[in-house]
Amino acid sequence: MTNQDPGTQRQLRSTVRSDGTLELSLARIPIPEPEPEEVVIRVEASPINPSDLGLLFGMADMSTARASGTAESPVIVADIPEKFLRVVQGRLDQSMPVGNEGAGVVVEAGSSEQAQALLGKTVAILGGAMYAQYRAIKAKQCLVLPEGTTPTEGAACFVNPLTALGMAETMRLDGHTGLVHTAAASNLGQMLVKLCLADDVPLVNIVRKPEQEELLRGIGATHVCNSASPSFMDELIAVLADTGATLGFDAVGGGKLAGQILTAMEAAASKNATEYSRYGSSVYKHVYIYGGLERGPTELARNYGTAWGVGGWLLPPFLQKIGFEAAQKLRQRVAAEVKTTFASSYAKEISLVEALQLDSIAVYGKQATGEKYLINPKKDL
Amino acid sequence: MTNQDPGTQRQLRSTVRSDGTLELSLARIPIPEPEPEEVVIRVEASPINPSDLGLLFGMADMSTARASGTAESPVIVADIPEKFLRVVQGRLDQSMPVGNEGAGVVVEAGSSEQAQALLGKTVAILGGAMYAQYRAIKAKQCLVLPEGTTPTEGAACFVNPLTALGMAETMRLDGHTGLVHTAAASNLGQMLVKLCLADDVPLVNIVRKPEQEELLRGIGATHVCNSASPSFMDELIAVLADTGATLGFDAVGGGKLAGQILTAMEAAASKNATEYSRYGSSVYKHVYIYGGLERGPTELARNYGTAWGVGGWLLPPFLQKIGFEAAQKLRQRVAAEVKTTFASSYAKEISLVEALQLDSIAVYGKQATGEKYLINPKKDL
Repeated sequence: MTNQDPGTQRQLRSTVRSDGTLELSLARIPIPEPEPEEVVIRVEASPINPSDLGLLFGMADMSTARASGTAESPVIVADIPEKFLRVVQGRLDQSMPVGNEGAGVVVEAGSSEQAQALLGKTVAILGGAMYAQYRAIKAKQCLVLPEGTTPTEGAACFVNPLTALGMAETMRLDGHTGLVHTAAASNLGQMLVKLCLADDVPLVNIVRKPEQEELLRGIGATHVCNSASPSFMDELIAVLADTGATLGFDAVGGGKLAGQILTAMEAAASKNATEYSRYGSSVYKHVYIYGGLERGPTELARNYGTAWGVGGWLLPPFLQKIGFEAAQKLRQRVAAEVKTTFASSYAKEISLVEALQLDSIAVYGKQATGEKYLINPKKDL
Repeated sequence: MTNQDPGTQRQLRSTVRSDGTLELSLARIPIPEPEPEEVVIRVEASPINPSDLGLLFGMADMSTARASGTAESPVIVADIPEKFLRVVQGRLDQSMPVGNEGAGVVVEAGSSEQAQALLGKTVAILGGAMYAQYRAIKAKQCLVLPEGTTPTEGAACFVNPLTALGMAETMRLDGHTGLVHTAAASNLGQMLVKLCLADDVPLVNIVRKPEQEELLRGIGATHVCNSASPSFMDELIAVLADTGATLGFDAVGGGKLAGQILTAMEAAASKNATEYSRYGSSVYKHVYIYGGLERGPTELARNYGTAWGVGGWLLPPFLQKIGFEAAQKLRQRVAAEVKTTFASSYAKEISLVEALQLDSIAVYGKQATGEKYLINPKKDL
């Protein structure tokens, strides 16, 4: 696709229409002019994270997706199940840009010194509206990548790395001493394995497939349980008793897994108990749900006494809670370790146009391990 | 029944047997001799609270209960569903006394001054093993009831009153400004209505029947929603928007109610929101599950963003958390208001022997509103 209208660019948009359908399209909008404190980045790499899909798909059932538009300007429409319409009421008929994070090259800079200093640099940013060819942003929001780092290597500097760091930090703040993580073979999960090894945090990884077990053991994971194994609960109880992990982070959300973790934590705690308590152990057990790979309801059997909690967890409020200074330290660590601890990998690099093709959506919409896509809007130029 | 063996008494016992059954019986044990710091109380009133039934029934399915033994020494046996056996592993083959709280008259006292001062006094105690004719306990654990208060009036001085006070206190400590309460027509619920009126705390009451609505409005409740009404969710959202209540206490536990409260809180919060947030409102919503009227799993639809939590709540850890001084203040308030704010009522007064009859169990085991039983072991003398 050639840019037939100089001074303009393409930007991916998601709209929940009042007829109960979702529409995805590529808008043509002006390339922004930078304010004095701003720079303009040519976006060259932006991952499709699970946290992007909520905004992108707007609760639509993507198995109903159909394509229209043209080859250069594809349009996707899908139906939103009625039960989810209340959730998306607040965004009706608003054409919303998508894409939390990404990296690219600074091609224009405002007049300020700070902005001018970034010209030509490869930077990573978190700010939304990254599924676009160009993005204006305040210079101070840019994380300058170490020399020799490509946009692809720096594309995922924020969401996953800060989430992994946030999990370990939350563990310390909430007074726990070990972690449980589900969907543990994801890019994020692999980062968490490396981070916990580096920081000496006991980590119990839960996966669903033998090859995911192997993958994690291959990068050094000590405790890996397969939830599809018939002896899953017994294995989980054993490693929880070993590690003393009492805080879980669950990306699955729906179904029984979060509750099973609490059940197993309680059983592990009871192993060390000396007398029966009708209210269960006094060991506090908690699971944060930070993703929704399964959209169905969370089922809690409540067979783990009364010292338990389940709740939502989200990165931005966590960063707000710990404050700018503490958050900045985490960001600096990410930049320093972007090619090691916090390295990501992708199955495929696609253009914006390709992101709106049914066969692509069928793959990245699954959020399957090892099938993560990276959008490179430079391919649309 | 006459006491044919002087110096002995009857005490209700609950045993989970290793064959997977529950056995309830009346043991004959010595009447205790008081230690110097202790008194012996002739128990004359002890309520059957929902919090007693967990220990009493040991997760057994009471619809399978069968009677044996004699008229004077009844025995009840019931089956425990296999899925619950893990939960009661810790109490296998232990014959356990039951009954959290009660009131009676001090009939013997140890040599200490504090104990002697209580002779003949009507006192309330919390300490377990109250479903018995006599109970020895430290003098300092006795709450002396105001002159003219009967054991029946003082029987339920602790569990419900302190729970109601604990809910209001937890609300303040957790930074909320209004409460939601389910099974709100219970004795506890009625106390909470009176307490919140007295303390000016916005309270949303959820009940299941029109007559319960009437009952609560009759004692001054402003906001009452019937979960069986077809317009329940709309009504709940409206009163939550009015009251700004963001903390719920749920006695039901199983099913969808706890989640529906979070859904409604989120909808109420969104009413005041000015722009759409894909992660839901930033208003933190919480439901504590403090009972289990429905034993089935808790179902959370998670359609309320990420700023939410659900967890267990239990009185003793709460009292421990606030410390002795603060807890003592709450107890003194209960004694002062035992005939008003914290008054309880009972459908029937039964003996220990009657407590082990199938027709009684069929009633008090239901934990239905207005069918609360009081055990008076003096009737067994």
